[in-house]
Amino acid sequence: MMETGGLAPKTSSGRFFEDFGLHDVIVHATPRSVSEGDIALYTALYGPRFAPQSSNAFAMGIGFPAQPVDELIVFHIVFGKSVPDISLNAIANLGYADGCFFSPVYAGDTLFATSDVIGLKATSGGDAGIVYVRTTGRNQHGTVVLSYARWVLVKRRTQGPWQGKDHAPELPKVVDRTHLTYRLPKLDMTGWDMALSGSAHRWRDYQTGEKIDHVDGMTVEEAEHQLATRLWQNTARVHFDAHAAKHTRFGKRLIYGGHVISIARALSFNGLGNLGFIAAINAGRHVAPLFAGDTVYAWSEVLDMTDLPGRDDLAALRLRLVATRNRPCADFPLKDGDAYAEGVILDLDYWGLMPV
Amino acid sequence: MMETGGLAPKTSSGRFFEDFGLHDVIVHATPRSVSEGDIALYTALYGPRFAPQSSNAFAMGIGFPAQPVDELIVFHIVFGKSVPDISLNAIANLGYADGCFFSPVYAGDTLFATSDVIGLKATSGGDAGIVYVRTTGRNQHGTVVLSYARWVLVKRRTQGPWQGKDHAPELPKVVDRTHLTYRLPKLDMTGWDMALSGSAHRWRDYQTGEKIDHVDGMTVEEAEHQLATRLWQNTARVHFDAHAAKHTRFGKRLIYGGHVISIARALSFNGLGNLGFIAAINAGRHVAPLFAGDTVYAWSEVLDMTDLPGRDDLAALRLRLVATRNRPCADFPLKDGDAYAEGVILDLDYWGLMPV
Amino acid sequence: MMETGGLAPKTSSGRFFEDFGLHDVIVHATPRSVSEGDIALYTALYGPRFAPQSSNAFAMGIGFPAQPVDELIVFHIVFGKSVPDISLNAIANLGYADGCFFSPVYAGDTLFATSDVIGLKATSGGDAGIVYVRTTGRNQHGTVVLSYARWVLVKRRTQGPWQGKDHAPELPKVVDRTHLTYRLPKLDMTGWDMALSGSAHRWRDYQTGEKIDHVDGMTVEEAEHQLATRLWQNTARVHFDAHAAKHTRFGKRLIYGGHVISIARALSFNGLGNLGFIAAINAGRHVAPLFAGDTVYAWSEVLDMTDLPGRDDLAALRLRLVATRNRPCADFPLKDGDAYAEGVILDLDYWGLMPV
Repeated sequence: MMETGGLAPKTSSGRFFEDFGLHDVIVHATPRSVSEGDIALYTALYGPRFAPQSSNAFAMGIGFPAQPVDELIVFHIVFGKSVPDISLNAIANLGYADGCFFSPVYAGDTLFATSDVIGLKATSGGDAGIVYVRTTGRNQHGTVVLSYARWVLVKRRTQGPWQGKDHAPELPKVVDRTHLTYRLPKLDMTGWDMALSGSAHRWRDYQTGEKIDHVDGMTVEEAEHQLATRLWQNTARVHFDAHAAKHTRFGKRLIYGGHVISIARALSFNGLGNLGFIAAINAGRHVAPLFAGDTVYAWSEVLDMTDLPGRDDLAALRLRLVATRNRPCADFPLKDGDAYAEGVILDLDYWGLMPV
Repeated sequence: MMETGGLAPKTSSGRFFEDFGLHDVIVHATPRSVSEGDIALYTALYGPRFAPQSSNAFAMGIGFPAQPVDELIVFHIVFGKSVPDISLNAIANLGYADGCFFSPVYAGDTLFATSDVIGLKATSGGDAGIVYVRTTGRNQHGTVVLSYARWVLVKRRTQGPWQGKDHAPELPKVVDRTHLTYRLPKLDMTGWDMALSGSAHRWRDYQTGEKIDHVDGMTVEEAEHQLATRLWQNTARVHFDAHAAKHTRFGKRLIYGGHVISIARALSFNGLGNLGFIAAINAGRHVAPLFAGDTVYAWSEVLDMTDLPGRDDLAALRLRLVATRNRPCADFPLKDGDAYAEGVILDLDYWGLMPV
Repeated sequence: MMETGGLAPKTSSGRFFEDFGLHDVIVHATPRSVSEGDIALYTALYGPRFAPQSSNAFAMGIGFPAQPVDELIVFHIVFGKSVPDISLNAIANLGYADGCFFSPVYAGDTLFATSDVIGLKATSGGDAGIVYVRTTGRNQHGTVVLSYARWVLVKRRTQGPWQGKDHAPELPKVVDRTHLTYRLPKLDMTGWDMALSGSAHRWRDYQTGEKIDHVDGMTVEEAEHQLATRLWQNTARVHFDAHAAKHTRFGKRLIYGGHVISIARALSFNGLGNLGFIAAINAGRHVAPLFAGDTVYAWSEVLDMTDLPGRDDLAALRLRLVATRNRPCADFPLKDGDAYAEGVILDLDYWGLMPV
């Protein structure tokens, strides 16, 4: 770009820590229409079998106007839009909290995303800082469909003491049950045929503390995670550039953390077949990286259960969803002392909805 | 699952031979809406060029309300639904017979599947048994779109003599010509432009005994067959888990047999360009496994020809479609004495429809 | 095919040089409907972020009836149709010229393609000849959507002097500015929100001679280019058959040149975010082959700028788009003396449209 003379540089190299100001509102490019093509690709990439998202006929039989788009498609698209503005210079994606799905999305809707900077904190090393954002996804009518907080360790432009003021936002550890209703239509549960949904177990059949090994494993190929990550228009270069990756710590491409979440969610069908909706993400940590060639396994633990204000059709399970690499989960691996156990790559805490 | 205390286990490990009863009717999860996304993915996975399924304009020009969904998409989806209930503990998929396509499927339709247990037969070894099922696919109106028999070698829960009674169903070797009309609309063949369909050869230009080498080869990648098999929501773990596969006979993932059928059908366009419709599957055998990195070739033999009761637009060719791996088919490889020849992986006997 | 007796051979092995006649018009199979599935797959394969093609809401906000299909989808489909008739026996694809996009394409449209033979020239070696064609894509209404010239080195059937007469067509070096209006609707530029489109730079912010490094790299996998090339129903066997490729000069599969164009175009978003439309392709050369495992980088140079007759919404940039393999483009690699520099694989000269 040195040859552009007096012209403004046309390429973006992303924001560094100093480029964020508390309470900044960042409008993300590019709005993205969701289509039946995305639904088919999501099926091909992960193999989900939850009935409301798989079948128009099933969804309409319980009261939806059409099959709702999988919540994780919505999450990945909104997240992907935020990458060029928030995390292009991220060293690490530190965590998620207070994520709520507020309204179903249907094929034909267009998603827009913005992020509010809700916290900034320099690190003691002086070469990076933590940026806290609340990212919000809206549809073409301006209706909020998703909102979540995340915090990211972002490189500094310069070293040395930071002149700004630290501010770390207070975030709830768990999304309150009053926020889980998700604006789903009132469902006609006579249409929820449990032979068709693939599981005979309803909310009342689970109990707090119950652990479920999801049994199956899914090996990931480079082409698969690249297709997925591009589908979300996520531009983080660590996922795509094997040439540059040769000179990094791992020596190879990293897989987008959201890819692991979607694989684990799809595997969890075997054991949670009626958990038709993700209502909220309480917390999430990508404990260790996943690489192409690795096989993902998953298990779940019921952390809590609650009914929902004003609804007698659905109730909520709070679940820990743990994913591992190259380690089957019959022994429910999680911690080894204070540290995560060998092989654990994802520790996700979320609320899901199931017929009562 | 040991930590679930008194609770019912939530995961399914699939039916074993003893879990099937003669005349059981099994309703399969999950209903699946077919969309334009599936059509595009099918094109990307196999590259088919048959005009009625490729073009709305062509299809409507010959009398369809829209481009019909490729019959093999319908087959794979219906088959995939049956896997968790029928063949999760299968040792081998032994064969197909008496498969009929009864009605076209269009984007927007939802497919449901059920299987009737039509036969059971213990094996002499005592550790497995053959389960015969008739699997039926229906659309959202309850119209049967596909029905076929298959038989599978399924593991026993326990060893030793089986207390049940052997029953092997009688199945036709070839689907009768009266069952080939397929509820296709009466076609306006003036719209079947042979420059656009890509072949100048009509039904009457073929003859029984004719062999056609389809020339081209298609190499298969792990990502491709995994995308395909998940697209059909087929959960057979042998296709996806490289970690577990290390300890199996082959040491690697197996490719879904239906993937081979679709590749061979797409390759067969070069020689059978006007064979726009598959009407019936008489018999099918996956002779040997295919692995990623292998290249598939195919050839066809015309086994029989027949006109169709009450139709003067289309007539039927009975074809043997043979696929090989890493072996071009100029010499039409099939048998070597009694055994299949080196490299042969598929021997499929089907009826296809072509302009008279 | 020797066993077919007196029957006409049913397979096509493609045209050789002697099979083309000057002014022949070749109708290509198979018409192809474009759908939202193709748009989603294109996003997954390349990760484009140009707003008009990504979002129905954005496109309709500037005056389109719906999001237009990416011009390169149209190009690849039309090009793919021409392969079985034009370049199945090609030794090399020598160049493109005078390519114009004439009308937007929308999901639901069906594309048809024809080629006119506009030139023939034997080579001195006597074993090949150059075939010049003008390929035209039309939609279901017969409206021309794309037209371009290309020339291909095609094998001869026989060696020795050719009896025909050489004719090389005159082709413009650059498409004239009067041909760039592209039948786009008159746009309401108040709807072109530059926060949403992802770039603050409009046409007037660029200048002739400006060079832009697009920074990011994209590694290509075998599964990806095979999915893409099959999606366009492009049957050139060099892209798909690893078994046969073992005995070729490169020993492996070649990647379809259009795959490189689409990757480079997608990478160019970082620097050319508002270049919403490709109006014309002036010239194109695939300088060297790309193989799976390679990483593609790209840079652009502004070659010329022009306003458009009768339009005050959009103006045109003439750009050189250069792609490399395994070589980042901070130093804008192009030529090394008379030859292309090490690593350069694509040199494309095109007109794009941007808000004034």
